Amino acid sequence: MEERRETGAESRAEAEGSQAPAPEAAIQDRLASDFSPLRWSDGAIEILDQTLLPREEKWLRCTEPQQVAEAIRRLSVRGAPAIGVAAAYGLVVAVAQGGAEAFAPAYDLLLATRPTAVNLRWALEQGQQIHDAGPEELETALLAWAQELHRRDAEINRAIGEHSVRLFAPGDRVLTHCNAGALATAGYGTAVGVIRSAWTAGALAAVWVDETRPLLQGARLTAWELQKLEIPFRIVTDNSVGALMSRGHVDKVVVGADRIAANGDVANKIGTYTVAVMAQRHGVPFYVAAPRSTIDPRTATGAEIPIEERDALEVTEVFGTRVAPLEAPALNIAFDVTPAELVAGIITEVGVLEPPYEESIAAALSRP
Amino acid sequence: MEERRETGAESRAEAEGSQAPAPEAAIQDRLASDFSPLRWSDGAIEILDQTLLPREEKWLRCTEPQQVAEAIRRLSVRGAPAIGVAAAYGLVVAVAQGGAEAFAPAYDLLLATRPTAVNLRWALEQGQQIHDAGPEELETALLAWAQELHRRDAEINRAIGEHSVRLFAPGDRVLTHCNAGALATAGYGTAVGVIRSAWTAGALAAVWVDETRPLLQGARLTAWELQKLEIPFRIVTDNSVGALMSRGHVDKVVVGADRIAANGDVANKIGTYTVAVMAQRHGVPFYVAAPRSTIDPRTATGAEIPIEERDALEVTEVFGTRVAPLEAPALNIAFDVTPAELVAGIITEVGVLEPPYEESIAAALSRP
Repeated sequence: MEERRETGAESRAEAEGSQAPAPEAAIQDRLASDFSPLRWSDGAIEILDQTLLPREEKWLRCTEPQQVAEAIRRLSVRGAPAIGVAAAYGLVVAVAQGGAEAFAPAYDLLLATRPTAVNLRWALEQGQQIHDAGPEELETALLAWAQELHRRDAEINRAIGEHSVRLFAPGDRVLTHCNAGALATAGYGTAVGVIRSAWTAGALAAVWVDETRPLLQGARLTAWELQKLEIPFRIVTDNSVGALMSRGHVDKVVVGADRIAANGDVANKIGTYTVAVMAQRHGVPFYVAAPRSTIDPRTATGAEIPIEERDALEVTEVFGTRVAPLEAPALNIAFDVTPAELVAGIITEVGVLEPPYEESIAAALSRP
Repeated sequence: MEERRETGAESRAEAEGSQAPAPEAAIQDRLASDFSPLRWSDGAIEILDQTLLPREEKWLRCTEPQQVAEAIRRLSVRGAPAIGVAAAYGLVVAVAQGGAEAFAPAYDLLLATRPTAVNLRWALEQGQQIHDAGPEELETALLAWAQELHRRDAEINRAIGEHSVRLFAPGDRVLTHCNAGALATAGYGTAVGVIRSAWTAGALAAVWVDETRPLLQGARLTAWELQKLEIPFRIVTDNSVGALMSRGHVDKVVVGADRIAANGDVANKIGTYTVAVMAQRHGVPFYVAAPRSTIDPRTATGAEIPIEERDALEVTEVFGTRVAPLEAPALNIAFDVTPAELVAGIITEVGVLEPPYEESIAAALSRP
């Protein structure tokens, strides 16, 4: 362990790169603590268009469920928890615009946008319950619910962060894949929330940010967040995980999730499975940070999780620049499944779940 | 095995994508059999600038060793065997321009361009022997040697292809990482040469092409070659390897090498190690195709191989487009080391070497 720390000193400097550690006084939460990629404003849900980050910060104003559905489909808003909250607001604007009869079509439209993340269905089913209870003012009831969902998600993420702190030791270098930050949630973030909490607790040296092809959510979004938070990081290609781990430069991995099966299998951004396999080979603990709403008790194992495939152009073009020969075909699998055996712990708002996951997950879901 | 083939039928169709298999008559070598990314022409070595592919095919005319060194450094010519041949011509133009006294500085200049691929040193040391033999016409002797090296490398690659055919079974879907094709050699290719030979022998259904970040040699170069060869392929992100293998869509992996240690450890493009680990997990044979000149008997194990790190801009910019926040730091490790235990066979011009590699490598190197 001592030896590893010594190797660490050298590689921590490497990981920090040109970013010197922030002075003590500056080590604090710089990304406004109430930052959210979603905001309710004057009868509309406004969505930060993440496809344009980090180059442009533009908000999309949605007053129709079609606009919300399109924003989810084209990944203007992405990340399982954020999609759930966006869909909730989608129901609100549907009823605001078209009355109670607009509810069912909006539900179907929103549910069909993306198949893998279960938080979408979870939120829509909650909205359905409110609808079915037949409140006097459906729109008012839905808005109150959506805003509560929004507020609670950020709260949940802070709780996830707090529960995770005991998992880290001073000097840890953490690798994360994709973006499970404030941008992927209603605020604070899940995996990035864990990183924020560990950093605040003084138990983090630096972060390795997988760029996360094809859409580069690591290089574009996680780097954007960590830069604002003044947490030292370096971007690496997804290909670098093996080299970093074999050099002993990674102490922990933490990622988010799009759906967790009842047995602990985890669907997350394509490439996560590979990171988990490499972590196992190198004895690096691999953690998943997610709210309980990401756990789907109706999905027994990862084999049942529908895996979205997206447009091949996301692979063959980067920001509109063609990177492959014209007409060269590509396959764009958006998620993969990490088997539970590779997961050291699932960090939720009610604590860190450990194997055997059938039991710890069932217990966590039965809690209030 | 039968079951696997059945799953295969479905996924072969998937791998082939929009590219229908070429009709029988068309199944032949379409990339001109003497295509080489290097050509000697009228006192100059001309180098196809691969940084511009697949968008532009431009040849760089080099009459000075500095131009050759720069072409190697900036990856206008890349791939271990091609670098060796380019360096040989670099010595020729040095002596043509500056006489015998220009030899030593050119040697040092060329040797310093890239540290990992050993073929560079191997070629330069051969040139040194010719120089030291003190031929009457040094320039003439060097040119004859460089042209012979050039010719023989393509021949060697065809032999590698022939030796590999027995490793493949009809219907195989092969994954390759980076580009070890005609573009990376003096012609025909090593890993892509194996793919060509297997395809010609009717033992290949389709190829999965890892895009290979950061410089996308898979998406840009291997796809360019396979398209010209009319071999069905699909590009995937490097992150997709786990998902493809867990679906049973990959039957073999074949990659090139930049240096092979005496014990069989293999340095190759960053991400290769990850592919090898995933292949082992999924029972997919992982092959390395390389000429004997890539084996360095003076390097005992992979731990001794110098690993190049390149400019962080190769990660944070794609074809000049910034993909990360301004000033976000990145680390760009260009190669990794795959331990010999993960390698099912090393395909050389004298046959397929198998474990234990200390013995099979020593035997292969002692052959004429």
